[in-house]
Amino acid sequence: MGLKSRMTEMGEKARAASRLIAKLPSTVKVEALNAMADGLEASKRALQRANNLDVEEARKMGLSAAMIDRLILSDKVVASMAEGIREVAAQPDPVGEVTKMWKRPNGLLIGKKRIPLGVIGIIYESRPNVTADAAALCIKSGNAVILRGGKEAIASNCAIAEVLERAASSHGLPHGVIQVVETTDRDAVLELLKLEDLIDLIIPRGGEGLIRFVAEHSRIPVIKHYKGVCHIFVDRSADFAMAAKIVMNAKTQRPGVCNALETLLVHADVAEKFLPEMAAELVDAGVEIRGCENTMRILPEARQATEEDWAAEYLDLILAVRVVKDLDEAIEHIEKWSSLHTESIITSDYANAQRFLDEVNSSTVMVNASTRFSDGQQFGLGAEIGISTTKLHSFGPMGAEDLTTTKFIVYGMGQVRG
Amino acid sequence: MGLKSRMTEMGEKARAASRLIAKLPSTVKVEALNAMADGLEASKRALQRANNLDVEEARKMGLSAAMIDRLILSDKVVASMAEGIREVAAQPDPVGEVTKMWKRPNGLLIGKKRIPLGVIGIIYESRPNVTADAAALCIKSGNAVILRGGKEAIASNCAIAEVLERAASSHGLPHGVIQVVETTDRDAVLELLKLEDLIDLIIPRGGEGLIRFVAEHSRIPVIKHYKGVCHIFVDRSADFAMAAKIVMNAKTQRPGVCNALETLLVHADVAEKFLPEMAAELVDAGVEIRGCENTMRILPEARQATEEDWAAEYLDLILAVRVVKDLDEAIEHIEKWSSLHTESIITSDYANAQRFLDEVNSSTVMVNASTRFSDGQQFGLGAEIGISTTKLHSFGPMGAEDLTTTKFIVYGMGQVRG
Repeated sequence: MGLKSRMTEMGEKARAASRLIAKLPSTVKVEALNAMADGLEASKRALQRANNLDVEEARKMGLSAAMIDRLILSDKVVASMAEGIREVAAQPDPVGEVTKMWKRPNGLLIGKKRIPLGVIGIIYESRPNVTADAAALCIKSGNAVILRGGKEAIASNCAIAEVLERAASSHGLPHGVIQVVETTDRDAVLELLKLEDLIDLIIPRGGEGLIRFVAEHSRIPVIKHYKGVCHIFVDRSADFAMAAKIVMNAKTQRPGVCNALETLLVHADVAEKFLPEMAAELVDAGVEIRGCENTMRILPEARQATEEDWAAEYLDLILAVRVVKDLDEAIEHIEKWSSLHTESIITSDYANAQRFLDEVNSSTVMVNASTRFSDGQQFGLGAEIGISTTKLHSFGPMGAEDLTTTKFIVYGMGQVRG
Repeated sequence: MGLKSRMTEMGEKARAASRLIAKLPSTVKVEALNAMADGLEASKRALQRANNLDVEEARKMGLSAAMIDRLILSDKVVASMAEGIREVAAQPDPVGEVTKMWKRPNGLLIGKKRIPLGVIGIIYESRPNVTADAAALCIKSGNAVILRGGKEAIASNCAIAEVLERAASSHGLPHGVIQVVETTDRDAVLELLKLEDLIDLIIPRGGEGLIRFVAEHSRIPVIKHYKGVCHIFVDRSADFAMAAKIVMNAKTQRPGVCNALETLLVHADVAEKFLPEMAAELVDAGVEIRGCENTMRILPEARQATEEDWAAEYLDLILAVRVVKDLDEAIEHIEKWSSLHTESIITSDYANAQRFLDEVNSSTVMVNASTRFSDGQQFGLGAEIGISTTKLHSFGPMGAEDLTTTKFIVYGMGQVRG
């Protein structure tokens, strides 16, 4: 059977399963999710054997230590996958919620009710734990899912999905609700992206290259984010100790992720007081600073920033620093360079806090908090299927609710239109 | 200046205007909208002079009487455009609404706040009143709009937009918030559809050909509906008088629109009793019936339906009729043939009503009401920018709220991530 037919067959199987899971009561989904979590733990050794094949292959291919580290299904990773599924199970079921209901003058009672999207395709790289997270969120929200992971984790992904699918179908979920694309042929992705009548949404997770490839070739709607160029603005009235603690956390706690800080903006009136101590602490932690001209006057040892630095997502211990004359200039800078991910203001000024929240239109805007909180789990969404930095459908961290839509339900008593 | 530069310039102007209108208080938008309505009425003669050019051209081109009729800006059409804008003005402002807010264990207060999408592109055919409706809804929701109407209404559209833009900018709205593409060159549309960094959403309104053209060529997200194949299921327990009244209304009150009835499903247990009288009434109103085999046994004078009839959006006085053995078969038929627009059940049975609402996943599902109500204005959304039959972002009739998205706002007290 050719790739096209195989992908179409998967899509049709998923579509059929999606019709069945959409009607299941919450309790069945919760039991199945808990059984999936138990299944992962019970099959730990088998999963790790499959994982060893991937890791050996990765070593042969000469992958970096960091990439191999991401790949390994340690006891801890398996436990945390299971725990993640249990957390999703414990969340409220978004499906069936009536978000609004109102009565029209003619007596029609009109409501908006949440329903699953149908079939979700997830296209991702490296980390095999995405297989478990994504499957759990799709099932919680009543969807069927087609998973296409990276070729370096193919044995692990297939093993995880097999365990999940077995646990799911022996607990009342329809066959086909979780499927993995078992070939690593890139053309399989191209065929998947053409199934606009069978797949409702594609979510790519990974590097910018993968995401652009998917966005360019998909006939199915895609929710995506390319990168996170997160800003913190230290206002004139900021509590310096708080600002320093937040900047350190945002830049250094985990620099390689999309919600880490990339550019620090400092109000000109306090730059001379704030920056030297802040910079010393950052440099101590191994952070390289790239500053604007005013920053250079205060921190002569810093490297000069170029235009590229304002656009950069370093994902590394590097920080761009710019002195701005006021809140307006801070907002202007963010408007120009932001990736619409997450921005935070550190301030004691009530009006500036409210203006920042109002006027900065990134997907997450914060006052006096670390950008590192910009994450589905940290926000209380249970787990995260991705972060959207495009505005359609969802904007910001996405949980199970973002994998639903609403339909109109109308209760009449025989009304006709005049 | 080439087409590409002209379209890019429009896009940039719209983007700049969108940043300004996003911050405007509701009162300014309401005053501007009311001034736009007044402006249309005050400029009625000038609009009609421009409209005469289009109508004369249409006559020369030999357009059908129906098409010319749609084109004419009669006194009544101008008054209804103005009234439509005033209704939109009177609606609540969706922008700034905090739809949810919750506190995390670490004290972070997290909310979702409505913001405008930014720049909306509307690509439409014939009726010049869309120019006014679309502009009003985009302004109400804090967006800038680029309008590209059909070439047969170009003089009318430009005249309407000029009046609207003049009224808007003399009442505090930024220049560039309403723009019309003044060339009828189809390549202008292609250039527009490439401006993914300047336009946030494209809404095509018109025939299936236009919509497919836009969906295929756009790099910008598109919200669309191709057609409306609406179903009514007359259940065994239906009140026959109510069913007949609703079927007549749904089929004949305005057969040329997307929420008109196209297929009637009748429960086998009551088909012999219900269909003869229903059919007689329909035939009296000029409706041609195309029936399944069981229907033919009851109505031997009907024409036999083929597979194409189940898929057909007649937009005409033709009705497909099928006898089904129960609710399950009705739902199955709808699942197979529905365009996800609107379906209604006529029943006195509580459980069947609830099952129909639950299990039919079209964008609007009704009990004991005419499909003709499936419309933004009838639902109380003020006016309608379109109807989405795809599930992403919006599903069903769309009003001003559907031209917004939500961002996360986070109030912290110095929290950092552990």
